Amino acid sequence: MAGLSVPALSRAWPALRAATVLLLLSGSAEAADVSPGPLTIAEQGSFFVGGRDVQSDTLSTLPAYAPSGTISVDQIYVHYQLPVGAHRPPLVLIHGCCLTGKTWETTPDGRMGWDEFFVRRGFPTYVIDQAWRGRSAASPAQIDAVKMGRAEPDALPPVFSAGREPAWAIFRFGPEYPKAFPGMQFPLEAQSEFWKQMVPDWSAALPVPNPTVPVLSELAKRLKGAVLVSHSQSGIYPFQTAALDRTGIRAIVAIEPAACPDPAKDDLAPFKDLPILVLFGDYVEASPRWAPRLKQCRGFVAAANAAGGRAELILLPEIGIHGNSHMLMQDKNSLDIADWLSGWIEKRVSGRS
Amino acid sequence: MAGLSVPALSRAWPALRAATVLLLLSGSAEAADVSPGPLTIAEQGSFFVGGRDVQSDTLSTLPAYAPSGTISVDQIYVHYQLPVGAHRPPLVLIHGCCLTGKTWETTPDGRMGWDEFFVRRGFPTYVIDQAWRGRSAASPAQIDAVKMGRAEPDALPPVFSAGREPAWAIFRFGPEYPKAFPGMQFPLEAQSEFWKQMVPDWSAALPVPNPTVPVLSELAKRLKGAVLVSHSQSGIYPFQTAALDRTGIRAIVAIEPAACPDPAKDDLAPFKDLPILVLFGDYVEASPRWAPRLKQCRGFVAAANAAGGRAELILLPEIGIHGNSHMLMQDKNSLDIADWLSGWIEKRVSGRS
Repeated sequence: MAGLSVPALSRAWPALRAATVLLLLSGSAEAADVSPGPLTIAEQGSFFVGGRDVQSDTLSTLPAYAPSGTISVDQIYVHYQLPVGAHRPPLVLIHGCCLTGKTWETTPDGRMGWDEFFVRRGFPTYVIDQAWRGRSAASPAQIDAVKMGRAEPDALPPVFSAGREPAWAIFRFGPEYPKAFPGMQFPLEAQSEFWKQMVPDWSAALPVPNPTVPVLSELAKRLKGAVLVSHSQSGIYPFQTAALDRTGIRAIVAIEPAACPDPAKDDLAPFKDLPILVLFGDYVEASPRWAPRLKQCRGFVAAANAAGGRAELILLPEIGIHGNSHMLMQDKNSLDIADWLSGWIEKRVSGRS
Repeated sequence: MAGLSVPALSRAWPALRAATVLLLLSGSAEAADVSPGPLTIAEQGSFFVGGRDVQSDTLSTLPAYAPSGTISVDQIYVHYQLPVGAHRPPLVLIHGCCLTGKTWETTPDGRMGWDEFFVRRGFPTYVIDQAWRGRSAASPAQIDAVKMGRAEPDALPPVFSAGREPAWAIFRFGPEYPKAFPGMQFPLEAQSEFWKQMVPDWSAALPVPNPTVPVLSELAKRLKGAVLVSHSQSGIYPFQTAALDRTGIRAIVAIEPAACPDPAKDDLAPFKDLPILVLFGDYVEASPRWAPRLKQCRGFVAAANAAGGRAELILLPEIGIHGNSHMLMQDKNSLDIADWLSGWIEKRVSGRS
């Protein structure tokens, strides 16, 4: 099991050593501050941002709990750790479809997650659960309304879970379940631990933009400047947040976004002078689902730059990193990628606000 | 907002100082190791325990996600931190109704949670989300089956949320919403942050005992001995776990349990020689919901001790701590209570296994 029989930090050592080598190759001078061993943090904790009150008469069908009352939804749960002597901009890590903030924590095979890596690198790090997901409350009101006979079954929310067989190709572990792409870096031997990370997804029951989007704006302002790091489903969120209000957004890192802004429809002015990185893993062209998304994001990056932007699109194989799945923050070389990303942020984004 | 404008640790100082005074009164000699300031941890991370695969054809009603596939449910999400030089037994913190592991983290008014307090005191600390709650996956299969017309509305799971108005008296903030008991220690000025912690509760849709119960046994064994600390709804779980298998259970701390084992029905042999603490806050006799539960637990403790047990039931006012709600781990004097509890464990449970 992850993190108990053998300390995760010492297991992470081979990857960290590999990261060091990569670091030397890439010219960064900072391998030394990422080492296994005790971690000292200045402060940690959790809180909520956003939220709205909803009054309902269909909160429960059980005698022990009253059906009527007020609940809060649309808030996001945020867990954070601040390094001692933080000298880099805060990162907000935003997970994708059917997952939670767990995405960024200990990997399925028990190695250090990006949440801790970036704290060790001097970044204040904030991990969220999207609105209506994980520790961010959903509402059972429509379900109970139907159960009580007060609404028809088609009023039920389209909440869904992704089964592992169809999800396999979406996560680009391979062309189809259970075949793996050659050279695959995802720790497939620990896949059962990964499938346990998946939870029901309410996003299709929510308005567009997702309630997470304005709350990210509130969070970025409170942090007095943050880099918004999205993944997959949440890829479009930080762009939508910036379109709403640029205040507090220092940069956008879109990891394997399901969509980028559409230059034919969306105003590109909010992205002027904003450092933007769109980052994809490997095997993208081999994926009927992801190849069009890559193409769409390429179109966005070109249009954003033509409009005065500072956008980059990088496929990991282009910088010599191979074999990455859609879940690149959990792949066996996840800390190599985090290390590279740390360097990108260092170069493109100025220090603490 | 919690933990940003003013560091949470310095805000916790008055409570910590109060804890020191209490500590001196109670004869413990360990105030010095709990102080605000940076925290050094040996290791941290998260993982899942338990879980079973479920195949379903009603996982989704959306074209973008296939309805058929395999998901994992019944696992519990565990987040842990290990202190440097841990010299005390691991604690497993188990939240109650309609809440998640957030219960034990930063308080609604931004003070240090018990999760961090106990790490600072030398306890390896494991915070879980119950099965089907928060980051521990529920299944949408029955909801989607009804939405698809493949099942009747009465097949919908009885998932519920507690509205704040009825929950007010359950949490014993006062006799009825929004009246507070005199001397109330819950930080009611920050109640909106607390209401955001509440999520839908699937427990009534699950078998008895709750799937969390056998998984706690698995966790206790992997930790090679742990103190199971429950709250409210989960109060009965560690007792059920011990009845299933005592291995790895070093002690049970039941904070404001909704139920204790029933001496008329339940075998008390599993509790022989096991340190057990049943802990209640204040205003219990004033609560029509809680007074009978207190009485029921008193009956259990007496019967368990008559059968060779080492059980204690304590109301906080009996040891000079007043004004506590049902959410005593978040009350303004929460660290005084944690400090006292740390001492109780120290006296009753021998050190690291």
